Amino acid sequence: MIYLDYASATPVSEKAIKAMWPYFNEDFFNPSAPYLAAKHVREDYEAAKAELAHIIGAKGDDLVITAGATEANNLAFSALDVIKTEHKNSQALVLETEHASVLELGKKYQAGLIKVDHTGLIDLVDLKRKLTGNTAFVSVALANNEIGTIQPLAEIAEIIRKERETRLITGNPIPLIFHSDASQALSLIPISVARLGVDLMTLNSAKVYGPKGVGALYQGHQVRLQPISAGGGQEKGLRSGTENVPGLIGFAAAAIEAKAHQNGARKRYESMAKILKAELEKSPVAPAFLGNKKHQLANFCPVSFPGIDAERIIYLLEEEEIYLSTGAACAASKGVKSHVLKAIGLNDAEIAGSLRISLGLQNTAEDMAVAGQRIVAAISKELARY
Amino acid sequence: MIYLDYASATPVSEKAIKAMWPYFNEDFFNPSAPYLAAKHVREDYEAAKAELAHIIGAKGDDLVITAGATEANNLAFSALDVIKTEHKNSQALVLETEHASVLELGKKYQAGLIKVDHTGLIDLVDLKRKLTGNTAFVSVALANNEIGTIQPLAEIAEIIRKERETRLITGNPIPLIFHSDASQALSLIPISVARLGVDLMTLNSAKVYGPKGVGALYQGHQVRLQPISAGGGQEKGLRSGTENVPGLIGFAAAAIEAKAHQNGARKRYESMAKILKAELEKSPVAPAFLGNKKHQLANFCPVSFPGIDAERIIYLLEEEEIYLSTGAACAASKGVKSHVLKAIGLNDAEIAGSLRISLGLQNTAEDMAVAGQRIVAAISKELARY
Repeated sequence: MIYLDYASATPVSEKAIKAMWPYFNEDFFNPSAPYLAAKHVREDYEAAKAELAHIIGAKGDDLVITAGATEANNLAFSALDVIKTEHKNSQALVLETEHASVLELGKKYQAGLIKVDHTGLIDLVDLKRKLTGNTAFVSVALANNEIGTIQPLAEIAEIIRKERETRLITGNPIPLIFHSDASQALSLIPISVARLGVDLMTLNSAKVYGPKGVGALYQGHQVRLQPISAGGGQEKGLRSGTENVPGLIGFAAAAIEAKAHQNGARKRYESMAKILKAELEKSPVAPAFLGNKKHQLANFCPVSFPGIDAERIIYLLEEEEIYLSTGAACAASKGVKSHVLKAIGLNDAEIAGSLRISLGLQNTAEDMAVAGQRIVAAISKELARY
Repeated sequence: MIYLDYASATPVSEKAIKAMWPYFNEDFFNPSAPYLAAKHVREDYEAAKAELAHIIGAKGDDLVITAGATEANNLAFSALDVIKTEHKNSQALVLETEHASVLELGKKYQAGLIKVDHTGLIDLVDLKRKLTGNTAFVSVALANNEIGTIQPLAEIAEIIRKERETRLITGNPIPLIFHSDASQALSLIPISVARLGVDLMTLNSAKVYGPKGVGALYQGHQVRLQPISAGGGQEKGLRSGTENVPGLIGFAAAAIEAKAHQNGARKRYESMAKILKAELEKSPVAPAFLGNKKHQLANFCPVSFPGIDAERIIYLLEEEEIYLSTGAACAASKGVKSHVLKAIGLNDAEIAGSLRISLGLQNTAEDMAVAGQRIVAAISKELARY
């Protein structure tokens, strides 16, 4: 098997499984129970939270643990609800290439859309133009989940800082919150919430070789949130429900491991991507590599073969146990055209011929050569049918 | 170690762990991805859902998988939001002894509280009195999470059915939805949504020897819900986020196992509870056993020793690795007095002297004798201090 869809799901690492293991049936206690064994579980839970937070330069208390990135994104937008109670006309801006959860939240809150260029990079001029005195919430993912483009968060934060200064001078009391979904980027690039200048940041276990069903929201001290759900008041009252102890322990272990090997992994991905691209260049239909060459996650290799039906390629390759995707998994299964590829200006033929290839820890250089050859062979086979 | 707090948390069963295992790092694929390996994961996920649903006499499509009971309860109350869009004055009624998540939801929706008698059983006269033409949502847990009292859901459903008939005749268009949180009861008593007459039912993996962080909401065909969170539109559009595949697989495996051994387990709990109670009767302070003798989950043995400080007893026992609780875990850690014990009419001394004892699969008859003797010894030690 050659798996090339790590952007969609990652296997749980051995270390993460080992870390989770005792919390399933030995230290299974409810962390809110009053006896010593349960208090130890609480300590382990808080320690894991602190370790996870440390990765992005934060403290454990700054994190709210959720059941995944979607929930974390929803909780992030509750900051806008809080602001709206005092400033009714507050508005949000989201990048047009955001993940479905932020995009749907954008729709719900009637957010403006910030444009990207043909590489998927944010159009800062468009951001400045759309940033009005009523803008209270800006959401830009650190790296795109379909084409891997890395956004210049620090530059965006600087624009936001200036707008805040203007508001201070002009007496505009509306707060301006900067949120970033870093789900896809966490394991690939160094992250510091202070350096990037974000107020809220979404993290996702399932994308960093941790278990599914766990995520986190970093909450800067200046941001007020409100819970999505009512209940027992866990996670500072922001996320009720018995804590998913093994989930968080596994998430933290996986994230720490990914961080420790980040530089080595990045170099490996770069050299593997080179091999893959060299093979794909041999295709009878010339490949168009998508995204931003300079600002792209090293494990992303999105590509389009215009005129080819990418779904057919996926079916041909799955027979050989080579697994890759056309777009984000949740959209792909519905046969919806990728909004990301539309946003970067691809035409219908280019979108229909697009493969989302994303590498991961289990891939080898040999895999790249084989996968590249098989993709090219599948394209040739398809061409012969036309 | 003798663990007597199974109502608060259960260890994950060997079978559940085994069932989950391959989905962590072999069949880890995103079930929404388009290739064969991922489609197999989707099939396994749907099969587990169908098996879980079968336990309560439902179909897989009737379940919405959530991150736990709290989320499922919140999603259940969205039925009231839907009704409110058309019938602004619609109201909810919740039992006064509900779990924190339903109780907090009750507060949020300004629900009326239905009274219980001194055994924790619903006061049906009070329900009838409070059920008005505006009542759109009634929530009564199948079994209480602190004292184990089992509610007569079928009788409640009959009252609700009559009210619906009256509305049909009088032309009152407001729907009336019956929700029950069956988290605590699922592994202990047979459940059929049709026989019990409920429209919505909450299930919880963490209470039936499945993994934490997974739950489900049964949704009858006649009930319309709306999502709590925006996102990729998984779970019939009602619960976005990549599916927690190992979580559901583990939940289903654990629930099936618990069901298979339900009758045997119940008999064991009954005989173990007898041994424990016989020992507790030897206490220098006479024990008052709480709840309803006839309608109580067999693994519950809540008891009060009036005048004794139960928290001290817990500390004395934890040194001997005997773990039990004073109240629901989320409330216990906050030092809040149990609303359940207040509702059944206990005075402050009785509440302060209350232990929540709940048995589980790992307990033995010998454990009961030992635990009973140690509890009595701790009480004697405490008395000597006064």
